[in-house]
Amino acid sequence: MKIAVDAMGGDYAPDEIVKGIEQARDAYSDLEFLLYGQPEKVQPLLKDTTRITLVPATEVIEMGDEPVRAVRRKKQSSIVLAANAVRDGEADAFFSAGNTGAVLTAGLLIVGRIKGIDRPGLTTTLPVLRKPDQSSFVMLDVGANADTKPFNVVQYAIMGQRYAQSVMHVQNPRIGLLNNGTEADKGDKNHRAIHDTLAQMPDLNFVGNVESRELLNGAADVVVTDGFTGNATLKAIEGTALSMLKLIKGEIMSGGLGGKLGASLLRPVFHNVRDAMDYSQYGGAVLLGLKAPVVKTHGSTKAETVKNTIGQIRELLATDSSKQLVDYFSEHADQMAALKEALK
Amino acid sequence: MKIAVDAMGGDYAPDEIVKGIEQARDAYSDLEFLLYGQPEKVQPLLKDTTRITLVPATEVIEMGDEPVRAVRRKKQSSIVLAANAVRDGEADAFFSAGNTGAVLTAGLLIVGRIKGIDRPGLTTTLPVLRKPDQSSFVMLDVGANADTKPFNVVQYAIMGQRYAQSVMHVQNPRIGLLNNGTEADKGDKNHRAIHDTLAQMPDLNFVGNVESRELLNGAADVVVTDGFTGNATLKAIEGTALSMLKLIKGEIMSGGLGGKLGASLLRPVFHNVRDAMDYSQYGGAVLLGLKAPVVKTHGSTKAETVKNTIGQIRELLATDSSKQLVDYFSEHADQMAALKEALK
Repeated sequence: MKIAVDAMGGDYAPDEIVKGIEQARDAYSDLEFLLYGQPEKVQPLLKDTTRITLVPATEVIEMGDEPVRAVRRKKQSSIVLAANAVRDGEADAFFSAGNTGAVLTAGLLIVGRIKGIDRPGLTTTLPVLRKPDQSSFVMLDVGANADTKPFNVVQYAIMGQRYAQSVMHVQNPRIGLLNNGTEADKGDKNHRAIHDTLAQMPDLNFVGNVESRELLNGAADVVVTDGFTGNATLKAIEGTALSMLKLIKGEIMSGGLGGKLGASLLRPVFHNVRDAMDYSQYGGAVLLGLKAPVVKTHGSTKAETVKNTIGQIRELLATDSSKQLVDYFSEHADQMAALKEALK
Repeated sequence: MKIAVDAMGGDYAPDEIVKGIEQARDAYSDLEFLLYGQPEKVQPLLKDTTRITLVPATEVIEMGDEPVRAVRRKKQSSIVLAANAVRDGEADAFFSAGNTGAVLTAGLLIVGRIKGIDRPGLTTTLPVLRKPDQSSFVMLDVGANADTKPFNVVQYAIMGQRYAQSVMHVQNPRIGLLNNGTEADKGDKNHRAIHDTLAQMPDLNFVGNVESRELLNGAADVVVTDGFTGNATLKAIEGTALSMLKLIKGEIMSGGLGGKLGASLLRPVFHNVRDAMDYSQYGGAVLLGLKAPVVKTHGSTKAETVKNTIGQIRELLATDSSKQLVDYFSEHADQMAALKEALK
């Protein structure tokens, strides 16, 4: 299994990317890497080239670049060349911590959609807190599309189910539709149509509508939503978690408790909390619905997250998850066409 | 100023509602109350009837009742009778902790919309954490409408601006549009149209797009959004805050730190954190765009929140905020009609 890596994307690139890839290489003996980047920057960082091939990419797509234009014009960038390698069968998956829009665009335009899937969905794994039998859940779309149709959300449920089976090893994942109430008739007519469609699909363990208040409590294993709401919900969870952590830390310190306790006593507490909330431990966001895994991590990604994400990609490749989706949507082409028509 | 109160709505009704109304009566000598409820239940709780008139309401709309049907059929319910009193000019505002849908429906169908406003927006005040010059912000719509048009969101900005001036005493509130990125071209075509319209309105201090990640950091004083996204975002913030509090408490206790510290030392810390996050201190959610203030608090409302919310309603009445909106939309009827046409 060979993974094409954008060595130049991310706030700590190429240093932390290269370090993480070397760690992943050491951890997984069945993986090979094509590392795309500027040789003069990447070469000196590479300690051991076992199963790592450095491929020169003279251009870099910056974080601020307009994604579609950048992908079209910067043909020699690490993102475009890595995506090309996947399209041409030289690599099996694509990993980047760079410009999100550019990675998604390269995924869509170069790696390409699975036949029958209109809109791939960006899929993130988030923590479930203090529930003995569930440690995480998956949500999609968290922002690949600002303008999502009901049919797309129904496809997210199918893709999310497979993803949870492959990567989270949940046999019969509970699928929930993010809505503004749990009753079946909640939401606008689009949400009611999605709800009723999912409820009638025999192969899905659909548990109905879920509210964003209950996500971290484990309301479902897979939460499907349009990309706009999913993005707002994900960022609200992130922002609130960060703010709460700061607030509580501040209260403990300013209340004089910090002094009493000493930083050394409190450190493990906040370390554990950060760990519990740190969803980068589950790897990156996957653009589900493409012919091969395209995985993006936060710009602030460091070596450990790179390594974890490579582990996640390895699971996706080992379970042949993209191929399974290709087969599913090929075998169910007629049903999908009928569904799409019905949900218009 | 006279406030019509639903004494029967909420998990702790009528006990805590009556208690809170008596506290508010004692705190604000310029307020009178019409208290709607079942006399045999409410009468025994009422210690002092100064400026409180108990009005018999034989029926109760339960939390599980279907809102529109309940408002249409239960003509003798406390919610319907209290709303009738506002419509008929016997009271100036309506307060309830009961069935949200029924309160909103009674507001829309009985109290009535301001002429020129298509969709009133449910407006909540939320905390801003650890920012010296800002302690809260306002967000609307947080769920009155599941199906919102761009024109409605533009009206939310105008109403939210007035609300922040009246209740939060912010002279020139910063208005932000909740979007999936801060750049002007983010979101679907509806969001781009809303952004461009707000940017061109000379009387609005529009600060552009804001992301849900930055809300608790004080990205704006007034955040406008469609009711579906606003609802998901509000509930994500609530749910994450609750989960984080539990998580951190659990970590401190299970790490042995709880024993070392003793509950008495930690109690004030968590008390302060809960206080900071407790947005009921700012009162209830207001359905902006009605002819008179209609204010709804959480079902779990206790006496103190009732009292705070009555204080908030008093501000709305003292600044004549509904009348101001009536005048504004009457004076700007032509502009509004043109805007509505342009945003179609």
